[in-house]
Parts: sequence; structure tokens; C-alpha cells
Amino acid sequence: MSRLHRGTIMKKKRTIWTGVGLGILLTIGIMVSGCAEKEPVTVQTVQIPEGEIDPVVWGKAYPVEYDLWRQTEEPTQDGLSKYKRTGFDADRPTVDKLSKFPYMALLFSGWGFGVEYNEPRGHAHMVRDQLAIDSARLKSGGVCLTCKSPYAPKLEQDLGVDYYKQPFKQVLSQIPEEHKTLAVACVDCHDANGMSLKISREFTLGRALQDMGIKRNDLTHQQMRSVVCAQCHVTYNIPKNEQNESVGVFFPWQNSKWGNITIEDIIRTIRRHPEVKEWTQKVTGFKMAFIRHPEFELFSNNSVHWKANASCADCHMPYTKVGVYKVSDHRVRSPLDNQLRACGQCHAEGAEWLQERVFAIQDRTVSLMLRSGYATASTAKLFEMVHQARDGGKPVDEEMYNKAKEFYEEAFYRSVFIGAENSVGFHNAPEALRVLGDAIAFAVKSESFLRQILAKAGVDVPLKVDLELKKYIDMRGEHKLMRDPELEIKDPMNLQEMF
Amino acid sequence: MSRLHRGTIMKKKRTIWTGVGLGILLTIGIMVSGCAEKEPVTVQTVQIPEGEIDPVVWGKAYPVEYDLWRQTEEPTQDGLSKYKRTGFDADRPTVDKLSKFPYMALLFSGWGFGVEYNEPRGHAHMVRDQLAIDSARLKSGGVCLTCKSPYAPKLEQDLGVDYYKQPFKQVLSQIPEEHKTLAVACVDCHDANGMSLKISREFTLGRALQDMGIKRNDLTHQQMRSVVCAQCHVTYNIPKNEQNESVGVFFPWQNSKWGNITIEDIIRTIRRHPEVKEWTQKVTGFKMAFIRHPEFELFSNNSVHWKANASCADCHMPYTKVGVYKVSDHRVRSPLDNQLRACGQCHAEGAEWLQERVFAIQDRTVSLMLRSGYATASTAKLFEMVHQARDGGKPVDEEMYNKAKEFYEEAFYRSVFIGAENSVGFHNAPEALRVLGDAIAFAVKSESFLRQILAKAGVDVPLKVDLELKKYIDMRGEHKLMRDPELEIKDPMNLQEMF
Repeated sequence: MSRLHRGTIMKKKRTIWTGVGLGILLTIGIMVSGCAEKEPVTVQTVQIPEGEIDPVVWGKAYPVEYDLWRQTEEPTQDGLSKYKRTGFDADRPTVDKLSKFPYMALLFSGWGFGVEYNEPRGHAHMVRDQLAIDSARLKSGGVCLTCKSPYAPKLEQDLGVDYYKQPFKQVLSQIPEEHKTLAVACVDCHDANGMSLKISREFTLGRALQDMGIKRNDLTHQQMRSVVCAQCHVTYNIPKNEQNESVGVFFPWQNSKWGNITIEDIIRTIRRHPEVKEWTQKVTGFKMAFIRHPEFELFSNNSVHWKANASCADCHMPYTKVGVYKVSDHRVRSPLDNQLRACGQCHAEGAEWLQERVFAIQDRTVSLMLRSGYATASTAKLFEMVHQARDGGKPVDEEMYNKAKEFYEEAFYRSVFIGAENSVGFHNAPEALRVLGDAIAFAVKSESFLRQILAKAGVDVPLKVDLELKKYIDMRGEHKLMRDPELEIKDPMNLQEMF
Repeated sequence: MSRLHRGTIMKKKRTIWTGVGLGILLTIGIMVSGCAEKEPVTVQTVQIPEGEIDPVVWGKAYPVEYDLWRQTEEPTQDGLSKYKRTGFDADRPTVDKLSKFPYMALLFSGWGFGVEYNEPRGHAHMVRDQLAIDSARLKSGGVCLTCKSPYAPKLEQDLGVDYYKQPFKQVLSQIPEEHKTLAVACVDCHDANGMSLKISREFTLGRALQDMGIKRNDLTHQQMRSVVCAQCHVTYNIPKNEQNESVGVFFPWQNSKWGNITIEDIIRTIRRHPEVKEWTQKVTGFKMAFIRHPEFELFSNNSVHWKANASCADCHMPYTKVGVYKVSDHRVRSPLDNQLRACGQCHAEGAEWLQERVFAIQDRTVSLMLRSGYATASTAKLFEMVHQARDGGKPVDEEMYNKAKEFYEEAFYRSVFIGAENSVGFHNAPEALRVLGDAIAFAVKSESFLRQILAKAGVDVPLKVDLELKKYIDMRGEHKLMRDPELEIKDPMNLQEMF
């Protein structure tokens, strides 16, 4: 046991004895004063200084939550989730998402996500994993710390635009040595004075909420139990200047309404902001934007659990007993990794029954994810062929080409929206499946235009487009990463092989 | 009030008085005999003769259920359902499904469903509506009575194969005059002796269950509360002989398992039985099978309500109070048409909240229905163009053509599967949306092959394929039916116009 940990437990014991003593005093006080109305006295043995970041200090006041929070470092049981492996096996510290979904290697080729893209581990690992990943993933600069370090708001305030654009490690070096790899901490979600939930990322989520006309005071405590998570579990864009340096970060919610942030509105926003086309897709040569883990967007868009007034914390931080305490479980994780205990708070059915429901949704989502992902990848390869033909002097119908490109982008963003979202459709099943259905419609329609263009140019496209996946998935980046065929997710509906 | 109705009420009063008297006698009996164990006495004042079809006779024993059953004749309140209009308005006895979804007029052109296809009304109207519809819908013969008349099992037994193949009206004429338009009745679901639920359609559902290895005794009462509905609310095929006469009727479940009848298994069965390709699609010239209202299949395929052990009757015939009686509501209808009272048996949320959940699913289902329907229709038109080119001597790549045809059929059956299913996706949201996603994938992939074939044949296909809908939707059949633009269902997601 670490010194730190031991210290915490000793502190906890002291706190309990202090509590017992106070309890006796309070009881006597109440007996003496009878029913006279008095202001209740808040017992607070530890004062957390304003602006304190160090979780150890917070842990003195809240030792139970602190200990649970520390547990995000520990592996979860493997095999409970069907489509997410958290990658804690000794021989496999990371799980390669590109091996799980090989079409992503093709689609993301051209920048960091196409080099190394791993399934996330527990919160505690976020900065450590960021330092271990291929440096291609850190090219955007200091901005990458926005969701990783509790120092981010202070750094943003101190450095201004330099926070976004300076090299990642340069900005990281501004963080005190002992906290360099400190991940999301108490201060990211809580107000030191009274522990109420707060928005620490005023410069991202705060502004995005403002854009939708939402003020902090409009939000209930229960809504805040989702909003604090929405500081990071959202998609975001990084606008670039002419030197391709990062100059900010924003959530593309300007066209959306609270409870109704749609992929359609996000795509519209992206199209209006060419400065957020952060990268160039290798296969097509197109400048593209990107969609990151839009958990909050998908969940809050009229999903059944959102409408039932459930919050992120209800399912991912369910109330749990620790000795005599009942606290919100700060070991944030998937309900699947916790035997669906969170679900049991509302649903009387057993864990096995509930798990089957989750898998029924995820099986269908994964099936259409594969359909839309491979369709989009095939279309990308056809663009490559069209570009070759055009470069070789063949005529290309411009109107049809432009429509194909427009549809390709519509498909790409939709496919990535659900592919990056961490619930494999569960957060909002009908919406996830609808979005994938449309991704398929746009991708294959684009393919149909490109096949026509190529046929007119005298290029014969076979029934199955050769994706040349090896080219994109093997020998990736600094670590020469290779495809791991064992990880590949196969279509649970057995249809993908028909295409 | 009709004489019949008045008689029933008088009978009911007599029954009540008899009941009160018996109650007093029974109470005295119990008091006298104390706790001595005695066989319980079944009180039955009316004996229903074995094989009795006349609901009036059944109504003497079960007047409350009889009265409720008769109410399926009455209009439901318009506007409660968003996508189903039951067509009871005085000026509109039917609601034209082809005007609601115009692509269906193109896809079904070539046989009865393309001439007249109406949204269903209450059970009581089924034979009357069958007599009013364009006679193209009755061409299959007596087989069409299978789900409409309680006399069907007797007719099938008496006439043998002639029951299926003889002209509809000829078989109808075998039914006693006063019962010619009698719709689904007590005997269709109940055993006269004890009122237990029974399978009356041994020659259809009975055999289909046998094919899946299910025996009547395997089924619980709760399962029977779905199975009696599954006698008709299923898809079925009508095999034809070489003279194109109907020679039977069967449910294509031979590859399926109880609780897991998939569209994939159904398509496999259809492909193995070319004799069920009942019609020729006008636009493509292809011989096709058809999919009818697969409510039971979609619902029982691992849906959340099925897994929660709900039955059809739980939602469509919820327990209701009539005076002092608590009975299963024999006015079978959509829960939406009954202020979602059925849902309230399990769900504590109010009707408005529940309705919003239903619409969230139906909006998304309708959106993908339109996407898949129009995609399939566009592909059909491209086949028409390919056939013209081929007839004009242009070369057509046979391998690509065959793959396009195979994919087109996969798309067609999936699109019809969800389009014919009467819940607009609600019976099983993730499955419905998955099936539609695949319908889109198959349809547009087929389109992409056809565009390539046509380009190679020198035929230039525009961005949007002209569906020439007017040709299919106006001046239909004997009644010269016209499109009613007011009925058209528009994409609630506002995307269809992009395609």
C-alpha cells in the first residue's frame, strides 16, 4: 500500500471518530434545546482552499469518494462487455480499435487516428496513455490537454492562444512535476466550497451551452450530473489558422437545441466552418473535419433514458455502499463492467436479462456500423480511382462528382459519429440505428455515382472494391503497429460478407 | 339499438341476477360446510355447442366480451396515431396506403397490392372491406378467406385444395347468408368448452409451429395470448401450381426458431420455394414473392416487450372494467387509440410521455422506410432501363446484373417487411431499423451496379432517377383510384429530399 493511501485511511479513521463525537454532542444539543428552530450546523473538518487542484487535499475531506476515484486505475473484469475491451490485460495494455474495425484504418489514414487509435482505459490512465501513444496523436498541441488534465483551465487562462498551439509537451511542462500525469480530478466537476457540481471548462462546454441559450442557473442538479461529463464526453473541433496551428477548440452545437443536438446540425456547423477541417484524408485527398466520442450528444437527443430523467452519473456512477456510507461511485465505468448494478436501481429484471437487452441493441448497431463503415471505405477507394482517371486526362462529370463528394462527407461524419460514440448504440438505440441507416444511404449512393463516372471514363470497377487494407493497417507510425486479426469484430448478423 | 343488441343486454341483466342468486347460495353453502374440502363448482348457465360459430350464441354466455368485440366496428378517435389513420372518417372510409407511401405504388405495380392497398379498419370490417376493395386483390381465390372468416377452417376441411384455388366469391358463397360478412369471431381463438385459447388455424399456424418443433402443449397461456393473434398477424405465402392457381398457404418459418423468426430466414425460405413467387413486378418484369403484415415475427424476435413476457393481448386487449366485471378488452386496437392505457399497466409514466417514446421510434422508422422504399423504387426503374438497353442489343455484364438482381430482391423483401408491419417499428425498434438499414444497403448497392452497367451501355443516368410515379399511382383499377397528396407521409428527419 502506498504511503499516500495509508495516510488517507488513517485520516478516514480520524474523521469517523470526530463524526461520532460530534454526533453525541449534536444529540445532546437537540435534547436540551427541544424543538426550538435552529439553523442546522454544517460539520466540516477539512477546508479545501479555493482553486485547489491536488486530489489528496480533497481526499482528506472526502476519503470515500477519493478511494473510489483512485480505483479507476484498476482493471475491470474482461469479457463482461461484448464490444468494448478495456485493455487491461498484462500482455495488452491497449486494445487497437483499428484492428477491431479495419475499415477505420483506411478512413483515418492521413493523421493520428489512422496511426494509433485505442479503446480507452479507466480515467486514471488518460495522460499516461496519451504519453505512450504515437506522437502523431499529439500534433494538435497543448489543446489535447483540454480534457486530460485538471490544469487545463488554468493553462488556457495563463497562455491564451499559445495554450492551443504550442507543442503538447511544451504545454505539459508547465504542469507541476508531481501532477504531470494527473488525470480528471475532483476540481474538474466540483466546487471546493460545498461540493456542488460545477462547469470547470467554461472555455469549451460553457461557451457551447451559451450558444444554445443555456445558462448555468437553468440547470438542475440532476442535469448537472450529465453536464459535468459533457465537458469531455462530446465531439469537438479544433479550428486551425493558416499555418495549420490550433487556435481554439469548440463544440459544434451552434445550430442545436438542448436535448436535441443532432448529427445533421453538427454536419451543418462543420460545413460552415472550413477552418475546422483539421486533416487531409490520404485516400481521397479531401480536407476533413472529425467527430469525437459524442456520448452526451447521442444520449441527450431524446433518448429514452434521458427522457426518463436519468443522468450519466446514474448509470456510470451509481450509488454504492462503502461501510456505513452511501456515495456516488467515483469509479466511473460501464454498467456492463459492474454487473449492471446501476440498471437495477430502476429495472427489476436480473443482470442476465438486462445484459441481453444491451447486446440486442449493440449487435444491431455493430452490424450497421460495419455496413456503413465498409461502404464509406469502398467509396473512398473509388474516389482514389476517379482522381487517378482525372489525372490521366479522363473526363469527369463535375456535377455528379460534387454530389458524390457531398454524399461521401455526409456518410463519413455519420459513420464516425456512431463509431466514435462509446456505447455501441446503447445510449440511444433508435437514433444510432437511424444515423447508420443514413450513413449507408449516403455512402452507397456516392458509390453509385462514382461507378457511373468510372464506367464512363472506361475504368471497369469489379463487384467488390479492393480496399487494400494492408496498406493502411500494417506498419503504422513510430511503433510499426500491425493488425491483430483476433480483435476484429465480425458482423453478428452474418451479412457483411455479402457486400 | 338493434334487436340483437337489446336482446344481449336483457340477457346480461338476467345473467347478473342469476349470478347474485348463485352468490348468495354459494355463500350459505360455504358457511354451512365450513372448511371441508369440496370440488369447486363451475357455474355455467349457457352451454356453447361444440363447433358453434355464431357469436350471438357465445355472447349469451359472455355478454361483456361480446359487446366489446362488437365495438371493433366503431370508429376510433382520429389523430391519436401519427402514422396510422384508421380510415373511419365519414368522407373517407378507407385510407390509401399507396398515397401515404407513393413508392409502394411503383413497387407493387403488377398485381392487387399495386391497385388498392388500404390501411386496415377495426376487425369487424374485414370481410366487408374485402368485398369493397378492387377485385384484383381477390384473384388468389378462396384462400383469401383464411384470415377473414371464422368459417375458413371448415371450408378448408370440406373443399380441400379447391378451398384455395376456387374463385373468392364462389368459396364465400358456401358461407351461410347471415354470416357472409362475419369477421374474426369467438371461435377463432377460443375453445367453446371452458373458453381456453386455441389454435383454430391448424392448417397454417399449426403447421408452421410444427415446422419449428413447437407443440401446442409447449405453449403457456401467456404465450397463447400472442399465438392466437399470430394465426393472422404474420406473413404468409400462397404457393401456385403451373396454372398459377393457389394450392395452399404457408408461413415461411421453416428455417426459423421460436422467438427468432428473422427476415433473413424468411428470404432464404422464399428463395427455396419458387412456387411462392406469386406475382410479376411490372417495372422489372421479375417474378416475386410478397411479405404481409409480419407483426408476430417482428415482435417475437427478441424484442424488449416479448422478452418482458408481454403478449399481444396485454397491449392490444388490456384488462378493462365493465361495471363490476374486469375483462380483457375485446375491442382490439392500437394502444395509441386507447390513450396508451395498456402501457400504464406496466409503465408509470403518463400517456403523453409514453406517446412521445412511441413517436421517437416511429419517426426514425418512417424516415428509413422512405429511404429504403425510394431507393428500391429507383433501382427498379434502373432495371427497366437496363432491360430496354439489353433488348436494344446493348451488352450487359451478366455477373454484375445477377448480383444486382439478387441485392434488389434482398432490398425489396426487407423494405416490404417493415412497410407491411403494422407498428411502424414500435414492436421491435432496433430490429426494424436494422432491417431497414440493410434494405438501404442492398438497394443502393444494386443501384450502383446498374448505373455502372448502364454507363457501359452508353446510357446516361441522371443524378435523380425519374420514378414516373404518376404512371403507377393514378387511375388505378376498377375505381380509377388517384393519388391523394394530402395523405403522403413526409420524412420527419427532412433528409429524403436530398436523395
